Amino acid sequence: MRLVRFRDPAGNVRRGEWTDTPGEEIVSRESYGGRLAFDSETFAEDDVDVLPPSDPSKIVCVGLNYADHAAERDKEIPDRPMLFLKTPNTVAAHREAITLPAGKKRVDHEAELAVVISERARNVSRESAMDVVRGFTCLNDVSNRDDQDREQNWVRGKAFDKAAPIGPVIAKPEVVPDDAAVRLRVNGDLRQESSRDQFIFTVPALIEEITQYMTLEPGDVISTGTPSGVGPITDGDRVEVEVEGVGTLSNTFRVP
Amino acid sequence: MRLVRFRDPAGNVRRGEWTDTPGEEIVSRESYGGRLAFDSETFAEDDVDVLPPSDPSKIVCVGLNYADHAAERDKEIPDRPMLFLKTPNTVAAHREAITLPAGKKRVDHEAELAVVISERARNVSRESAMDVVRGFTCLNDVSNRDDQDREQNWVRGKAFDKAAPIGPVIAKPEVVPDDAAVRLRVNGDLRQESSRDQFIFTVPALIEEITQYMTLEPGDVISTGTPSGVGPITDGDRVEVEVEGVGTLSNTFRVP
Repeated sequence: MRLVRFRDPAGNVRRGEWTDTPGEEIVSRESYGGRLAFDSETFAEDDVDVLPPSDPSKIVCVGLNYADHAAERDKEIPDRPMLFLKTPNTVAAHREAITLPAGKKRVDHEAELAVVISERARNVSRESAMDVVRGFTCLNDVSNRDDQDREQNWVRGKAFDKAAPIGPVIAKPEVVPDDAAVRLRVNGDLRQESSRDQFIFTVPALIEEITQYMTLEPGDVISTGTPSGVGPITDGDRVEVEVEGVGTLSNTFRVP
Repeated sequence: MRLVRFRDPAGNVRRGEWTDTPGEEIVSRESYGGRLAFDSETFAEDDVDVLPPSDPSKIVCVGLNYADHAAERDKEIPDRPMLFLKTPNTVAAHREAITLPAGKKRVDHEAELAVVISERARNVSRESAMDVVRGFTCLNDVSNRDDQDREQNWVRGKAFDKAAPIGPVIAKPEVVPDDAAVRLRVNGDLRQESSRDQFIFTVPALIEEITQYMTLEPGDVISTGTPSGVGPITDGDRVEVEVEGVGTLSNTFRVP
């Protein structure tokens, strides 16, 4: 089951189910084929506004969780998860048009599988970690390298407005394979591709580590890092993040 | 005027005014002398639970904003504000007993003057920055050095649960002098003392810089950095942060 939150054509916010069949291949699209069911009603994706699937109080992100991306950024494999934060102002919706910070030389896309938390969680062992997972979604960890590369904490670099498009759905864990593909396309061209079985730190290991320090709240998000192939976003780009079993998050970007 | 949020003896959450006279000297106390007024009722501080004065969606903190603390941490004076983040799980109340993360060699106190935002703010110039300030409060930027000193982003170091006691009130800007003293005492002994006129980056300059990147929401907090004299918290310590014109934030700490 894939859960979706959307604003229907009459302006009502609704929670429903995304009913089309998730393909393993992205078909890059100018129009969309999703169907969203709410009780007995069904809406076409093009006729609604898909909303972010949760309102996280925090997004805890993981850097360097695929060995290939660690090499690309010239970093050593960490001995524990490298964590950073995205604040609520970073959240953006599927199909939202995003204006990037002005005057930056390089702002990159980063395709990520993200975890949505179901209940308040503190000191959770990896063995019981999946009990606090509502499901998985797609997240684009949009990264302003100009600032990131010159600050200790990546605030300007990673926590600027709309730096975390997320969605379109929360897919229940059972519909997302253990080796789910994580892919990113820019204007239809494949730029990133790996799979969840390449993680250095698994989802349960991340939940165990994070909840030793921080209470996670329902709706909070853990983003699990990006594979190799990150690259710059240019004006007008359509960037699609696909996680197998979840679907495709699509955004267009403006560079002012 | 100093605004306070509290739970009265009957369990109701109320917003009122703190009516005692703020002294320039802390008198370290085992019992408290504050008076909290709600409409025509008045409560003694000892009879209520003072709540955090706001529920921030994010706390944007500034590192190294006093030249003396920059020297103490062996850091150069930055050419722009050094920012880091505290998430909502870090918020703790005046007089709340706080249990620190287990097994750490050194967790430090850091006395700070904090700014509470009054309205949604984006791209605010320093000239109009005070228009989006509700007032000032005290914040203790509790810092787990064991982890902070070995991570790129200070998540375990600065964003663990209860790492940001805040309060007891929001003091309107007009009651906080331009050279307001910022002091910290541990069990009554003065450990940190400086004043707001020693800031490297002023409050309006910080608001201008942060809102170039991030939308601030009502209740969000900017913490303005700490002066020299930071030091370890040990089991049972009573730590008091005083900002002249605001009052005194007091917490006891447990080291498990």
